[in-house]
Amino acid sequence: MRAVQVTGYHRSPELTDVATPRVTDPHDVIVRIGGAGVCRTDVHILEGQWAEKSGVTLPYTIGHENAGWVESVGDAVTNVAEGDKVIVHPLVTCGLCRACRSGDDVHCARSLFPGIDTDGGYADYLKTSARSVVRIDDSLEPSDVAALADAGLTAYHAAAKAARTLRPGHRCVVIGAGGLGHIGIQVLKALTAAELIVVDRNPEAVKLARDIGADHGVVAEGNHVEEVLDLTGGDGAETVVDFVGESGATADGVGMLRRAGDYHVVGYGENLDIPTIDVISNEINFIGNLVGSYNDLCELMTLAARGEVRLHTTKYPLEDFQHALDDLEAGRIRGRAILTP
Amino acid sequence: MRAVQVTGYHRSPELTDVATPRVTDPHDVIVRIGGAGVCRTDVHILEGQWAEKSGVTLPYTIGHENAGWVESVGDAVTNVAEGDKVIVHPLVTCGLCRACRSGDDVHCARSLFPGIDTDGGYADYLKTSARSVVRIDDSLEPSDVAALADAGLTAYHAAAKAARTLRPGHRCVVIGAGGLGHIGIQVLKALTAAELIVVDRNPEAVKLARDIGADHGVVAEGNHVEEVLDLTGGDGAETVVDFVGESGATADGVGMLRRAGDYHVVGYGENLDIPTIDVISNEINFIGNLVGSYNDLCELMTLAARGEVRLHTTKYPLEDFQHALDDLEAGRIRGRAILTP
Amino acid sequence: MRAVQVTGYHRSPELTDVATPRVTDPHDVIVRIGGAGVCRTDVHILEGQWAEKSGVTLPYTIGHENAGWVESVGDAVTNVAEGDKVIVHPLVTCGLCRACRSGDDVHCARSLFPGIDTDGGYADYLKTSARSVVRIDDSLEPSDVAALADAGLTAYHAAAKAARTLRPGHRCVVIGAGGLGHIGIQVLKALTAAELIVVDRNPEAVKLARDIGADHGVVAEGNHVEEVLDLTGGDGAETVVDFVGESGATADGVGMLRRAGDYHVVGYGENLDIPTIDVISNEINFIGNLVGSYNDLCELMTLAARGEVRLHTTKYPLEDFQHALDDLEAGRIRGRAILTP
Amino acid sequence: MRAVQVTGYHRSPELTDVATPRVTDPHDVIVRIGGAGVCRTDVHILEGQWAEKSGVTLPYTIGHENAGWVESVGDAVTNVAEGDKVIVHPLVTCGLCRACRSGDDVHCARSLFPGIDTDGGYADYLKTSARSVVRIDDSLEPSDVAALADAGLTAYHAAAKAARTLRPGHRCVVIGAGGLGHIGIQVLKALTAAELIVVDRNPEAVKLARDIGADHGVVAEGNHVEEVLDLTGGDGAETVVDFVGESGATADGVGMLRRAGDYHVVGYGENLDIPTIDVISNEINFIGNLVGSYNDLCELMTLAARGEVRLHTTKYPLEDFQHALDDLEAGRIRGRAILTP
Repeated sequence: MRAVQVTGYHRSPELTDVATPRVTDPHDVIVRIGGAGVCRTDVHILEGQWAEKSGVTLPYTIGHENAGWVESVGDAVTNVAEGDKVIVHPLVTCGLCRACRSGDDVHCARSLFPGIDTDGGYADYLKTSARSVVRIDDSLEPSDVAALADAGLTAYHAAAKAARTLRPGHRCVVIGAGGLGHIGIQVLKALTAAELIVVDRNPEAVKLARDIGADHGVVAEGNHVEEVLDLTGGDGAETVVDFVGESGATADGVGMLRRAGDYHVVGYGENLDIPTIDVISNEINFIGNLVGSYNDLCELMTLAARGEVRLHTTKYPLEDFQHALDDLEAGRIRGRAILTP
Repeated sequence: MRAVQVTGYHRSPELTDVATPRVTDPHDVIVRIGGAGVCRTDVHILEGQWAEKSGVTLPYTIGHENAGWVESVGDAVTNVAEGDKVIVHPLVTCGLCRACRSGDDVHCARSLFPGIDTDGGYADYLKTSARSVVRIDDSLEPSDVAALADAGLTAYHAAAKAARTLRPGHRCVVIGAGGLGHIGIQVLKALTAAELIVVDRNPEAVKLARDIGADHGVVAEGNHVEEVLDLTGGDGAETVVDFVGESGATADGVGMLRRAGDYHVVGYGENLDIPTIDVISNEINFIGNLVGSYNDLCELMTLAARGEVRLHTTKYPLEDFQHALDDLEAGRIRGRAILTP
Repeated sequence: MRAVQVTGYHRSPELTDVATPRVTDPHDVIVRIGGAGVCRTDVHILEGQWAEKSGVTLPYTIGHENAGWVESVGDAVTNVAEGDKVIVHPLVTCGLCRACRSGDDVHCARSLFPGIDTDGGYADYLKTSARSVVRIDDSLEPSDVAALADAGLTAYHAAAKAARTLRPGHRCVVIGAGGLGHIGIQVLKALTAAELIVVDRNPEAVKLARDIGADHGVVAEGNHVEEVLDLTGGDGAETVVDFVGESGATADGVGMLRRAGDYHVVGYGENLDIPTIDVISNEINFIGNLVGSYNDLCELMTLAARGEVRLHTTKYPLEDFQHALDDLEAGRIRGRAILTP
Repeated sequence: MRAVQVTGYHRSPELTDVATPRVTDPHDVIVRIGGAGVCRTDVHILEGQWAEKSGVTLPYTIGHENAGWVESVGDAVTNVAEGDKVIVHPLVTCGLCRACRSGDDVHCARSLFPGIDTDGGYADYLKTSARSVVRIDDSLEPSDVAALADAGLTAYHAAAKAARTLRPGHRCVVIGAGGLGHIGIQVLKALTAAELIVVDRNPEAVKLARDIGADHGVVAEGNHVEEVLDLTGGDGAETVVDFVGESGATADGVGMLRRAGDYHVVGYGENLDIPTIDVISNEINFIGNLVGSYNDLCELMTLAARGEVRLHTTKYPLEDFQHALDDLEAGRIRGRAILTP
């Protein structure tokens, strides 16, 4: 089959012919790829940033946001069957460790991450596990939802966690209305009746956020902390979900947070640097957010099937992978780039 | 190997020689039995009460409260190794359905129940799954903890769920200080600082409950509802955990419950029969409790290893199974009967 | 001022002239009534059904669903000021007992209930407490929201409690699409992404439920349990919210409930009568629901201001109270009847 | 009456004669002081550190950890009566704002803090509010429990919040076994079955922690992070409760924290300074902790009455206040210094 492989760092990946994966373990699932998201992490992999952390051996196939159709399954697979349309959770988890047994499979003690530390989905077929495939609604197309498998799932996880404490009348600030923030806003709209205040440097992104349901949009031009405080009667918001995490976003975000508020860290880059006396005297919380669990992905697919979460995509044939990567690096993609068969 | 099998209903089971189970699936685990609890359910099975519900084909081996040593494991087993001392969760679950993926494996869509619907542990060896075995502390013996696998696990599950809302100063009534209640009291002592009021018809059981830490004991002789109300300043208790569920226990128990209180149903037999106007005007809750999850069993084994939960047992060699069953039916067993190799 | 008073049971109330209430305690708030809901409970009061339970002394003024404008306040009142537009929580609570200190003021140890056990709002003015008044948005009119003060608040409380465990993909059955159910459906839509299945005997009510957002409507004509099971793939719904509670609703509702599901009791009349073995083997919960708290009312008013909860009302001048009561008894009112100044 | 007043900063307070407070508001409660805790904050007040923040006008009476007997009450007080033995919550709260209505009175929008911004308890009598007094058990003496009113309440609040997620088998690291840590350890023992690992620089404090029930003690001498990791099988602890918050404690503490763990910030001084990539890749949380609520204080008094929380005290007559302050500054006090009548 065809696969786009990393053959070395700081050079372009190559489209090559490799053996088609087949079932060797009773829980194996082979997925015929219908869409593979092109993610900034792929660019970072090619730059070698993940080489040491992942410990992967070259060459290997990248691509960690995948969806398609079940091609074949092992004997022990009971949750999907050949021909099912599925999205693929980015992790292959063990199902036996205490984290997996708690439904917290993201913290599995023995997980694999196809596309990062083993072969991924820039290919015709992907080998994954029964524990990683979620059947999607007939109305959804793999190439439309593939990018929800990782970026969207992270946004869903953070927004759904934030939603648990958001009551009507509460204010939720969303910092960053880019790829993840865009999904996060839609999820918060679907799961809460909180007042949504979106902050972004890009006026276009703010406008788009308003279009998909944000109650207020604030362009981050210097007075944004004050603007948010004004919008919250001077008190600050009960919740901040920060999809940026760099260039001063955390200091700004903490300034927008109410006493006893929750600050969700999703984006990253800078240090969270805050006096402990402020943490205790305002009794605020900082909550880390990684990618969502298998159940989170099932829930996100439900929202997608109900039309409550939508994502704009630009599609490229698999063989045009370099074009997609170039467009991503150049900032020429609106929404997400998807490789299709 | 030796196995005690049901060969027909309304007759004694038979000790016979059967093939020793072996690994056929990569998640299989073969356990050499160190202790198998003799449970009232085993008596009911022999009376044919479970025949239709379980759909089991005779002959088969009974015994659903098992502990021992890992004899062999399949290729995919990563959580235990040969020689490990383990207790066996009563269910073999799929790990793939939504319930399993939530940590709520008790509601697995495709579970087996060895000893009920497939071969159990009144034998030299038991075949179970990696998803069902919990390593136990070096200080614990399989024959001492086997009965915690089902009866104890049910009591743990209910007590731990009740504990989540019990704050210091709250009162918790435990109805029934028999096998399950005895474990439940110890768990509530370990997990909460609530005031424990134990109600039982048997003065000896009440005395024993006081010895293991209950704050108050009430013998159910007719005035017990009033006595509990007196002990709670007339208001009733924040929580009732009912390990009886028959002979009027639920009506009594509801009479002991405070406004906005939680009533945990564990024992069963009679109908819960209560005017909906009382449910809403007092805003009380009735909470069902089945056996605990895999994680519950891990937690219970931690309490056992810390000496916070203890169980009195009477041991019989496997070949004396009929003696044990007879003693159980005749009410001659203090604590739990355990079959040993 | 004018007031409609109960002067005896089994006879019509009388419009009479009584002393206008004035501030005597520092937390007193006098509200000029803008709307007073006419509730079935008012009919029951006049029939003497509440005489013993409330212990009220005749004559007194009925009306427990009130909204209007603050006329005057005591010295200690800091949360509202003269002229504020407010809705009135039905209870006057102490603020000092443990329930009040937990935010659970509905279970206050020393509450009053104006309109039931002391003078209510079928009048020009009502005396209540600072702890009972919630400022409403400029866009809302007292006569439009008054009926949300009790009936709507009960529906909000139950729906919001149910919403806490409803995830995308879960199914929630609402039994009864009348006054409370109508509000409950709107609240569930606002707070969750669950799939809503509404069951009612009245095809018109089912149609209306679909119009305001229910995903499925089922007319209760005999096959409704099977229809709901079909809609849930045979498993039953994760949550049932029962606004009926009589005429067999609870048995039907339990038949629609999934394993590990929650059954919210809101409507009342019949007994909840269910074998304890079903409670434990399915591990289901029954959750009582009374009227909502002060904070619940604040949240409901937020939803009303956002246009997410609307109520149809029919207005009558205060002096036409008998007309309104007659129309209510005759089933001639669509939505709720409101007395206006 | 006698009162110890701040008459200027950077000088000793003075024992003087002032008017005895009397009831002027219906919710007022006058407490005859039985014990007033001497706290490091009192030293900071005298150094002027709180002058600007509190905005207090000199002279005024310090002392914010108070217990005694109710001397007189206003008309609206229903929760205590003259002669009752009480501990005094440090805040006087409004009872009307949304925070108060949620049971979260610590975040009251209009609170007073006697001893900080108005007259406190280094005196014969203190004026407080019905919302601030908690009746204590007959077995407890005001002078023994006074120091639990603020320092102890903060420790209780953090430990009880941490306890909510601590299951049997979880490990909880307590950093700092001084005044607050000492209470925190006792509370964690009472409310959880978690394994407690106590870390302190002072070997004596570590030994004391072991004596009151810590499972492991680690002297912070440079290898303490590694020692904690060893005690947790290399994974780190599910929860860290940091009562220090300075001199590198937070960096050490984060190093001891497991993936998906909770870090409770109680002590303060340094900055929390951590890369956001670590927050998200380990998905850890930082949870602020201020003083406890009224209900927290009720619960702590229950634990004290049950003998589950004890505090060592050194008592001084009120007129020896300077001696007590000097001993505190010189580090000569074991446990807490208490002024008595």
